[in-house]
Amino acid sequence: MTILFCATGWSNELWSDALARYLPGRDISIHGRDAYDPASVRHALVWRQPHGLFRPMTHLEHVFVLGAGVDKVMSDPDLPPCPIARVVDPDLTMRMTEWVTLQVLAHHRRFRTHLAQQAERRWHQAQQWPASAVRVGIMGFGHLGRDAAEVLARLGFRVAGWSRTAHSVPGVETFSGAAGLAPFLARTDILVVLLPLTPDTTGVLDRDLFVGLARDGVFGGPILINAGRGGLQVEGDIIAALDDGTLAAATLDVFETEPLPASSPLWAHPKITITPHNAADSDADTISRLVARQIERVEAGLPADHLVDRTLGY
Amino acid sequence: MTILFCATGWSNELWSDALARYLPGRDISIHGRDAYDPASVRHALVWRQPHGLFRPMTHLEHVFVLGAGVDKVMSDPDLPPCPIARVVDPDLTMRMTEWVTLQVLAHHRRFRTHLAQQAERRWHQAQQWPASAVRVGIMGFGHLGRDAAEVLARLGFRVAGWSRTAHSVPGVETFSGAAGLAPFLARTDILVVLLPLTPDTTGVLDRDLFVGLARDGVFGGPILINAGRGGLQVEGDIIAALDDGTLAAATLDVFETEPLPASSPLWAHPKITITPHNAADSDADTISRLVARQIERVEAGLPADHLVDRTLGY
Repeated sequence: MTILFCATGWSNELWSDALARYLPGRDISIHGRDAYDPASVRHALVWRQPHGLFRPMTHLEHVFVLGAGVDKVMSDPDLPPCPIARVVDPDLTMRMTEWVTLQVLAHHRRFRTHLAQQAERRWHQAQQWPASAVRVGIMGFGHLGRDAAEVLARLGFRVAGWSRTAHSVPGVETFSGAAGLAPFLARTDILVVLLPLTPDTTGVLDRDLFVGLARDGVFGGPILINAGRGGLQVEGDIIAALDDGTLAAATLDVFETEPLPASSPLWAHPKITITPHNAADSDADTISRLVARQIERVEAGLPADHLVDRTLGY
Repeated sequence: MTILFCATGWSNELWSDALARYLPGRDISIHGRDAYDPASVRHALVWRQPHGLFRPMTHLEHVFVLGAGVDKVMSDPDLPPCPIARVVDPDLTMRMTEWVTLQVLAHHRRFRTHLAQQAERRWHQAQQWPASAVRVGIMGFGHLGRDAAEVLARLGFRVAGWSRTAHSVPGVETFSGAAGLAPFLARTDILVVLLPLTPDTTGVLDRDLFVGLARDGVFGGPILINAGRGGLQVEGDIIAALDDGTLAAATLDVFETEPLPASSPLWAHPKITITPHNAADSDADTISRLVARQIERVEAGLPADHLVDRTLGY
């Protein structure tokens, strides 16, 4: 019986090493690298698996989703009837807050401008506003958004959150629902997006939304930071908005197509900063340890932890 | 009577505009740009003034120091007998914490590596350790150091502080004095330096100190971040340590000579990140407002706030 690993955009070498560490002596196959018999696969460890992967797996007993978000698995037309479990990494929130804090500060303190000046051997001190002059808006105000908000507020930024349903967070201005969106955008200089991908949020980051952001801030235009899902954004609109000044800059961790194709105009745009969907990546070592524990658990006849509810879809 | 502004390395245009805003109708001269009669100067607003500046100012009534640290003024052989006042900017600590947090996160999350990958249109997710795997050591654990420590600890880093005399901070490991230095360095992956410049600290950042830093951390070598004073560092030793692997990387905001000369090898070193002594710069607008208030105060016959004690030297 085979344990299959299949993750789009992640390093096969890194994960193969980590899984071997915590599942010694087991038959572990890496999809796309190793030849394997689909009928022998009992446990599938997946992240953004191609649709069709599960179809020939006639003896599949468990699917373990290795990252945050189960949208890709739940929308698979060949999703088998076996239990689907999430592997919940307790430090995922910490990692996302690191990344959001870094990207907000990098724009605020003009990290890339300083690198460009360094390359020119140029000593120049531009006007630097305090964090209290900058309004950060976090769109998607669940566990991740609220944690990042807390750190950004501690740094002195004026932070607000928007979510579909109302959340109250001490010291942070909150907006909710369709009616709250326009006033939220109108007071936002740096928009941090941490929304889940659902039919409602697909393509929400488009020109209509960008034109609603604040235009009276200290950066000369609003800044977009997306670490939610690539499906939230309309990449053509982002480029057009950067080119005509509707947006001043963008930092993107997620993309319509991942890995981002080498031909994408996003790579070379001077106002775009790209990270390869690793804002809060699943640590190969930590997750391999956690999934090994779950496999021991199910092989001992116990149910896996963090099972997905098929009715709710998460 | 003239108000003279003289700041080395700061933008004359920026400050001249800001001072005019808060001191309308006054005779404001910018040293190095405007012709002025030194005997007419009543108030000198200075930052890193050249020695000799004060000598011909026979009617000087007040010196206002515009930034953090009065070392340059107090060591001036021509320091006049008039009151010396600091202009204390309440958001200086916030700004320094922004900068320290940004630079630590930029190393931790490999900001520059991601920019290089972007330039190559390369999608690559390297192993990313959590903050809890990284030991940050803050050398100089006064008000600035303790504030940065609090934010870094909130982000999950393992933070320790070293200072000349003992400070106790909840949740942060502290070391002090000569005896505490070696164990502090030995547990430090990222060294953040916020020391004041005194005869004891001049040149302290040298090869002897670098070899004492941790070599078993996740970055493959220790990282130096200096936002204290340029006089703390031996730049030849920094370059040699980067070249032979004793240091893995360095971020420097301060330099032996400022502005950093275009001929300095620091500019083009691939392991060095440079900011132009603006980690916690004095905001032209805020400080101009504060100094205008102090000038009104002394002209009304009141003493200036934040007078320097000549005996203590600060």
